[in-house]
Amino acid sequence: MNKNDIPAIGIDLGGTKILAGMVSNSRLVGEPVRVPTPSGPENIISALLEIIADFQREHLILGVGIATAGIVDPESGAIIGSTGNLPGWEGTPLKHAIQNKTALRTHVENDANAAAYGECRAAGLHTNHCSIMVTLGTGIGGGIILKGGLYRGAHFAGGEVGHIKISMENRRRCTCGLWDCWEAYGSGRGLLATAIELVQGKTAAQSCLCEKGEELTTNDVLDAAAAGDLIGRQALDKYHEHVAVGMSSLCHVLDPDCFVISGGMSKFVDLNLLKDLLADRTLPRISEKLEIYPSQLGVAAGLIGAAQLVLDAVAGVESVANTR
Amino acid sequence: MNKNDIPAIGIDLGGTKILAGMVSNSRLVGEPVRVPTPSGPENIISALLEIIADFQREHLILGVGIATAGIVDPESGAIIGSTGNLPGWEGTPLKHAIQNKTALRTHVENDANAAAYGECRAAGLHTNHCSIMVTLGTGIGGGIILKGGLYRGAHFAGGEVGHIKISMENRRRCTCGLWDCWEAYGSGRGLLATAIELVQGKTAAQSCLCEKGEELTTNDVLDAAAAGDLIGRQALDKYHEHVAVGMSSLCHVLDPDCFVISGGMSKFVDLNLLKDLLADRTLPRISEKLEIYPSQLGVAAGLIGAAQLVLDAVAGVESVANTR
Repeated sequence: MNKNDIPAIGIDLGGTKILAGMVSNSRLVGEPVRVPTPSGPENIISALLEIIADFQREHLILGVGIATAGIVDPESGAIIGSTGNLPGWEGTPLKHAIQNKTALRTHVENDANAAAYGECRAAGLHTNHCSIMVTLGTGIGGGIILKGGLYRGAHFAGGEVGHIKISMENRRRCTCGLWDCWEAYGSGRGLLATAIELVQGKTAAQSCLCEKGEELTTNDVLDAAAAGDLIGRQALDKYHEHVAVGMSSLCHVLDPDCFVISGGMSKFVDLNLLKDLLADRTLPRISEKLEIYPSQLGVAAGLIGAAQLVLDAVAGVESVANTR
Repeated sequence: MNKNDIPAIGIDLGGTKILAGMVSNSRLVGEPVRVPTPSGPENIISALLEIIADFQREHLILGVGIATAGIVDPESGAIIGSTGNLPGWEGTPLKHAIQNKTALRTHVENDANAAAYGECRAAGLHTNHCSIMVTLGTGIGGGIILKGGLYRGAHFAGGEVGHIKISMENRRRCTCGLWDCWEAYGSGRGLLATAIELVQGKTAAQSCLCEKGEELTTNDVLDAAAAGDLIGRQALDKYHEHVAVGMSSLCHVLDPDCFVISGGMSKFVDLNLLKDLLADRTLPRISEKLEIYPSQLGVAAGLIGAAQLVLDAVAGVESVANTR
């Protein structure tokens, strides 16, 4: 086997499940495995070690990359900021725990950053001056790749793009407690909030969404829009505008080569419409040559990116320690 | 003379005047000279060559740094985007014109970028992960320094922070033609627009600003605020909020170590109030360790930064060609 083809294990550690697989050349090798996330740091680490041992039993492995929720110091590989999804996780010296037990080179990365690296690396976009991944899901996440390396910020909170402000009116509260964050409008929850505003004063004759009352969900809105319901369509149109406003601010800060749009909401986004709405809000020098790509890796982006960070560090393509 | 002390000439080329001086170790050496900007690219280049020749007659010079309005490709040193302040300037191969005639190493930079580099380099902030200069003047400009180098973006329009969106309501038009840019609120013009909104329906008994009618200026608003006029003070309070909203978005994209605040409006900004307003709008992990500094170099920042870029390129501290 060519040394360049020896895989790394990539692990995406979420609040409910762990997704793990072998990765080589930015692609999965074989089928990934999926196990429920146990509770508590010790049990999580045991589960990760078991997964790694299972892969090692049958394969030569170059290293381990772990994408985790929470704020990560990728130099020490410790979790330095908590997440509600993984109680007690803050303070866990994850890299040391895994590296010491497995003797495998280990890299720990924030999950949004890992996914951004995975997507951009797989698509050959990572050597651009600037590529930005925007993940439109229940919330909005992001990752910034500058000239081959992840941009992590002074306090490892770079690319927290969901909290860009898109209004100053204190109209909607974000789950973070702040007002008018992009995420409060441009996420799945944001679309639902927009629909709830739009159905106020409307009757069931005007929109099928009025019948749902308090039970209304994001999927109801998406279904209604697909079925041609006027309010559903208005909400989805507004949603595109809300997404474009935040992207416009990103454009005027970073002047990127491209965006990659991922996340559960992305399949409901019309990228051509989004590009037009963005051009309406952005200086032509920036928007004219800007590309917007859909995600290619889907839910495997985080584990692929985390593994590829290790592979690239070994190959000297990306210096993990130097790209904070 | 120690080689490290040989100065470079720094030139700040604006729409109405040219400011030039010798720079060593991020400081002016001797008095700068100031001449009116002539009209047309050929006359401007002649004026620059004359200024350079005057300095060379009496001093050993290491190179020339030119900060100019407009979009610049610093690799070729050509002006690739126009500015209304310098008609006909687009397309000028400025670096070649100066370097070929003077045989001095020449670097051309966008003026906001040069000023950001000058300020951060002089204050020892340039080796931070991320320092952002925000220039609050008639408009809003900016410059981003990442780990020692200027961040210029994919199309040399990185740091156009004045066009971050701070509203999605299409309330105010920016001079760029787009709606609700930060600059339409957080600049001197923005403060005036806010005051004009606030005086609507008020009488002269309520605010001295009502007497000015169409003649109202930004300085009138600042004077009224200083004198304790209620509307003047409200406008200045709102102004601080508007400035904080844009900075919050910058924080959530780049997670900077610090901001440097410069420009004509900056002396009316209460940095402690601004820091509090920013903390109200920003994730604690980002805002808690964030510093906000006032400009130290004032109007000389552009020429000092442009000259220092040349000095650092010669010294190998900053690779001019590699920091796009």
